[in-house]
Amino acid sequence: MERALISQISKYEGKSALIKGRVFNIRNLGNIVFLVVQDYTGTIQVVADKDVEVKTGDAVVIEGLVKKDERAKGGFELKSEKLEVVSNTIEDLPFDLAKDDLNLNLVTLLDYRPLSLRHPRVQAIFRLYDLLLKSYEIVMREYDFTEIKTPKLLGAATEGGANFFKVKYFEKEATLAQSPQFYKQIMVGVFERVFEIGSVFRAEPHFTTRHVNEYVGLDAEMGFIKDFYDITKTLNIILKKMFSMIEKEGKDCLDLYGIKGLEVPEEIPIIKLSEIKKIIKEKYGHDISEGTDIDPKGEELAGQYAKEKFNSDFIFITHYPYSDRPFYTMPSPEDEKETCGFDLLYKGLEIATGGQRIHKYEELIKNMKKKKIKPEGMEFYLNVFKFAIPPHGGWGMGSERIIKQMLGLESIKEAILFPRDVKRLIP
Amino acid sequence: MERALISQISKYEGKSALIKGRVFNIRNLGNIVFLVVQDYTGTIQVVADKDVEVKTGDAVVIEGLVKKDERAKGGFELKSEKLEVVSNTIEDLPFDLAKDDLNLNLVTLLDYRPLSLRHPRVQAIFRLYDLLLKSYEIVMREYDFTEIKTPKLLGAATEGGANFFKVKYFEKEATLAQSPQFYKQIMVGVFERVFEIGSVFRAEPHFTTRHVNEYVGLDAEMGFIKDFYDITKTLNIILKKMFSMIEKEGKDCLDLYGIKGLEVPEEIPIIKLSEIKKIIKEKYGHDISEGTDIDPKGEELAGQYAKEKFNSDFIFITHYPYSDRPFYTMPSPEDEKETCGFDLLYKGLEIATGGQRIHKYEELIKNMKKKKIKPEGMEFYLNVFKFAIPPHGGWGMGSERIIKQMLGLESIKEAILFPRDVKRLIP
Repeated sequence: MERALISQISKYEGKSALIKGRVFNIRNLGNIVFLVVQDYTGTIQVVADKDVEVKTGDAVVIEGLVKKDERAKGGFELKSEKLEVVSNTIEDLPFDLAKDDLNLNLVTLLDYRPLSLRHPRVQAIFRLYDLLLKSYEIVMREYDFTEIKTPKLLGAATEGGANFFKVKYFEKEATLAQSPQFYKQIMVGVFERVFEIGSVFRAEPHFTTRHVNEYVGLDAEMGFIKDFYDITKTLNIILKKMFSMIEKEGKDCLDLYGIKGLEVPEEIPIIKLSEIKKIIKEKYGHDISEGTDIDPKGEELAGQYAKEKFNSDFIFITHYPYSDRPFYTMPSPEDEKETCGFDLLYKGLEIATGGQRIHKYEELIKNMKKKKIKPEGMEFYLNVFKFAIPPHGGWGMGSERIIKQMLGLESIKEAILFPRDVKRLIP
Repeated sequence: MERALISQISKYEGKSALIKGRVFNIRNLGNIVFLVVQDYTGTIQVVADKDVEVKTGDAVVIEGLVKKDERAKGGFELKSEKLEVVSNTIEDLPFDLAKDDLNLNLVTLLDYRPLSLRHPRVQAIFRLYDLLLKSYEIVMREYDFTEIKTPKLLGAATEGGANFFKVKYFEKEATLAQSPQFYKQIMVGVFERVFEIGSVFRAEPHFTTRHVNEYVGLDAEMGFIKDFYDITKTLNIILKKMFSMIEKEGKDCLDLYGIKGLEVPEEIPIIKLSEIKKIIKEKYGHDISEGTDIDPKGEELAGQYAKEKFNSDFIFITHYPYSDRPFYTMPSPEDEKETCGFDLLYKGLEIATGGQRIHKYEELIKNMKKKKIKPEGMEFYLNVFKFAIPPHGGWGMGSERIIKQMLGLESIKEAILFPRDVKRLIP
């Protein structure tokens, strides 16, 4: 007999069906036993004999008659005629997966990750994550971006800073990519518009709710732009399409977190960093010193401002200070202390960083000197600008941060299957 | 004026259009200059004044009148009225990108990667690669697989062997993932069917046309299988759908390599390793010793046999020896010296490895002991089998190998944007 998926069970009303899944819960009423069985499409109530030998968590294959039953969740139940345990639990589960909320602290949740992931509310996070990837893959192609994969093992030179991991690479030393930055810029000269979904490694010793040491970046780079607003506009459109797809296909999962809609404004509010700092100070009394990035509290307040003033979950903050942005960032044509660099906040947390890049060789070299960065090991990157890279820019988004903010999770680690932090390499 | 994509230029016949792209070639006829301009959708001939100031390779924005012209490639030409060089080449290109074939040796091709990638025949490889990713992303979801992302930084323990890279991870040592094996198996207990597109790192000192030290794996794992033929059948169906999508959408690129069709048989021939070894010896006189894997020459001959006998570019080879396969591979129920492990060859090269895995805790522990593998550091993986993982299996495919074989490229490195080998970390 062909397998019936639980979500399709109504088609089998009055007929026999074969389901495969996991026993999620058992209620023993003495003369009869109710099982809740879960496959990857849903759950169904199964009525079994009182002498059925099965435990919570077992993987089962059940054949039986499908009956309509108003009292059962989903409206149908299966009267078990043949039940086979194809794989059994040999230890008690460390927590009750049938509870509405696992209610574990973060450490326990992550230590027991292979099992805590089986809880429907935790599963929902990663169903939405799947939809996020899917929507990026589809929408980026709709806008003519070509998907690329660039190396994560790099020669010694990197974007600079000290936040990179070192790898013993045969007789040499390699570093792990902190971003696909150089490669996606090179690829603008090849395909004009490219995107990448790839691993990003950051050796930051932070231990916060927003940082991890390995994440999945949603990167993009595009050529022939007029100015950096072409980038913010494109990202705006793409996010709007992605969120609309996620909202539609992920409704059940969003419901579990009480999220009603995923609204991305037609035009995300856009404001200069210096402006938003002023507003935050005046409106909320939070003071951030001049010439620096916004702090986490400031991001939160900027998000609050976007919500109060524009009813928007998103806000672009632009013109980050020259001193704060990497050497390849295009300086602002109006003020050399500022750049054409932006961040995008979602509910008060930075989820994307982007900007226009310098596309002329001489300017790039000049800017490196000004920033006291040595070109050694970067020649392959610098040289391509001798060969007419068009005006361009792009963004890097943190996929897991999007999901964290979407669902209001306390830590980004909840949005990663097997997160990595300073202390955690296992599981 | 809105930008016109070159592939859409026929819509502008008799009207003005604005194109953006790169000057691919220049023919100066004295009183008139013909430019071939390329954007990411195609090329067009542009007629410019004799005093136009532009060089091959320049990034340009051109406004002009679109005219039908039978003599021009594509059937249309643009009479330039306003030409702006938005980014210019300041050095001569090291080779002529307008030649039909770059004809560079592999080292030069890779040393100049940022520029050699601009050649149409090289671009075609990565347009097909994009389609390969796209088709995997789409078709896997059609078959209910959930996309996952698993960590690439792992605790010290790995699948075993010595072929892993070491990373200094704060005060600890980490290793780079040789595969997502443990994690995708754990995820069978969560979503039943999962797939991953992710970086794979192998510290193999090989220097061949088939090996690189970093590649992109197309992985999958599925639960509730009857036996490992469920896996070969699923992979067969999925490849067939993928190749049909690539054939349709990648026709232009395939044409550049003289590839007419991408045929995947309804039923890919499937043969035991011991059988194919016999055949190779009898038919082609190539002798492979007993109890070992097939060698590269043997793979080639197996491919030749599949073509001659079944007119198939693909062949599954099954029942690899117990001694050759990792500890988690399900031993064959018929012969304990063999396993439920298989390889898939495409035109005589292994592109996928897969099999059924052991799903019962006791058997896994027994098998580890037999293989003398220590469980230290793998507890998180082993323990999940105490909690009813259903019978399952899956595969890992090398994305770049598929493209290499599809186009008959000499080296896998041609199918990777920025390949990594023992000597190459740059570009």
